[in-house]
Amino acid sequence: MKVFETIADWRKFREALEPGTIGFVPTMGALHAGHASLLKKSASENAWTVASIFVNPTQFNDPKDLENYPRTLEPDLALAESCGVDFVLSPSSREELYPDGYRYRVSENDFSNRLCGAHRPGHFEGMLTVVLKLLNLVAPTRAYFGEKDFQQLALIQGMAKAFFLPIEIIGCPTAREADGLAMSSRNTRLAPGERELAARFPRILSNRELSASQAAEELARSGFEVDYVEDRDGRRFGAVRLGNVRLIDNFGNFGASK
Amino acid sequence: MKVFETIADWRKFREALEPGTIGFVPTMGALHAGHASLLKKSASENAWTVASIFVNPTQFNDPKDLENYPRTLEPDLALAESCGVDFVLSPSSREELYPDGYRYRVSENDFSNRLCGAHRPGHFEGMLTVVLKLLNLVAPTRAYFGEKDFQQLALIQGMAKAFFLPIEIIGCPTAREADGLAMSSRNTRLAPGERELAARFPRILSNRELSASQAAEELARSGFEVDYVEDRDGRRFGAVRLGNVRLIDNFGNFGASK
Repeated sequence: MKVFETIADWRKFREALEPGTIGFVPTMGALHAGHASLLKKSASENAWTVASIFVNPTQFNDPKDLENYPRTLEPDLALAESCGVDFVLSPSSREELYPDGYRYRVSENDFSNRLCGAHRPGHFEGMLTVVLKLLNLVAPTRAYFGEKDFQQLALIQGMAKAFFLPIEIIGCPTAREADGLAMSSRNTRLAPGERELAARFPRILSNRELSASQAAEELARSGFEVDYVEDRDGRRFGAVRLGNVRLIDNFGNFGASK
Repeated sequence: MKVFETIADWRKFREALEPGTIGFVPTMGALHAGHASLLKKSASENAWTVASIFVNPTQFNDPKDLENYPRTLEPDLALAESCGVDFVLSPSSREELYPDGYRYRVSENDFSNRLCGAHRPGHFEGMLTVVLKLLNLVAPTRAYFGEKDFQQLALIQGMAKAFFLPIEIIGCPTAREADGLAMSSRNTRLAPGERELAARFPRILSNRELSASQAAEELARSGFEVDYVEDRDGRRFGAVRLGNVRLIDNFGNFGASK
């Protein structure tokens, strides 16, 4: 496995890479079994697999969240290698990906303002911008994203279509802990009591006997601060906070909003 | 020369095109000798030359200007062919290039707000968005733009760098009429008296004896409505209006603003 810390080195290498299908998994590091499932899927479907590890500052609306985001490069590289990753793009500074100082941006003016977008101003603009940069740099055949971030996945699929990117955007099922909590790099920041409570989030959110507003009430009663619970296109989306850790999740096969 | 009216047809064709350098000249049609110089340059430097003809609605801040923009497809195709163009992409509807309904956009938050950007809200956002779509669809080796639209050229070069497009963006000298007026598709909309007066615009704008504000005064005295005259990075930029026709131009080798 080869690791690239500068964009210039990567571009030189990419230009000379022999042709073949390329699978790409962009990450912010702190890799867990959810990432591993994406990486393995990519390795099984493509000649080459590229992972990127970059904690993208422009998609953090909360500076505290950016500061506290877990950074675990050494174990990340070991996990990537064990999953069959060939190349890791791990830019050493913000300037590597933002030579323009974030002057140029990609935005979306509808779905990106709803759900998480309504609670995290600028988040999806930063996410779409960095993903477009990375997709252009890697020029993969396929790119893999988890369904835990379903809104992110839908926006990236929309961007790929709107800008005619010749890349297949593939959504993969949410990986869950034994108690049902969706795997997330932020889970490591939950205190033990919070971690136990967190398992009630997917249980309540996926309960089809409850309307969205009933689920929100039940979550609040259980001790979560609720950002939103909302049904949209047959899917229930939710975001809650425990202390300074924000959790999101979603489940399909829901009817229209009640 | 082959003409494509749907994006789907073009993409199928582009995928199967044998490898070789590709030069690309995006236009809004109403082709004149300025376009011809870009097309010929591209044809001389690349295995294939692609031109696009699309009056991009999202970059018109003024609906009247969009409505009145000249559309001359038949002579445009004849001129393109005579310049050595191999393929013309001439989308038959707005929806072809905006399957997303202009939900996804590219913006720039500094230079795009100055000069023409200060007078044409949304113009550069629409321009950058359609240019990114076209660059992705054509995937050229080189793309050619006239220096008459110097701000546009600089913004496209910045976008290509920011998003790591593997495309060389080439600026080409402004083509001028015998009396010095920069060639522009909008010139055909000048009444005869206005057309005669218009030649004073480049003469006054390029006069290095005048400061920017003196040039603006002189233009106003001559009968132009002045949007701006401004020195920036050793270049003098100007935009004026005659009736409902807007003219822009720029000249290098100017000192800093006086």
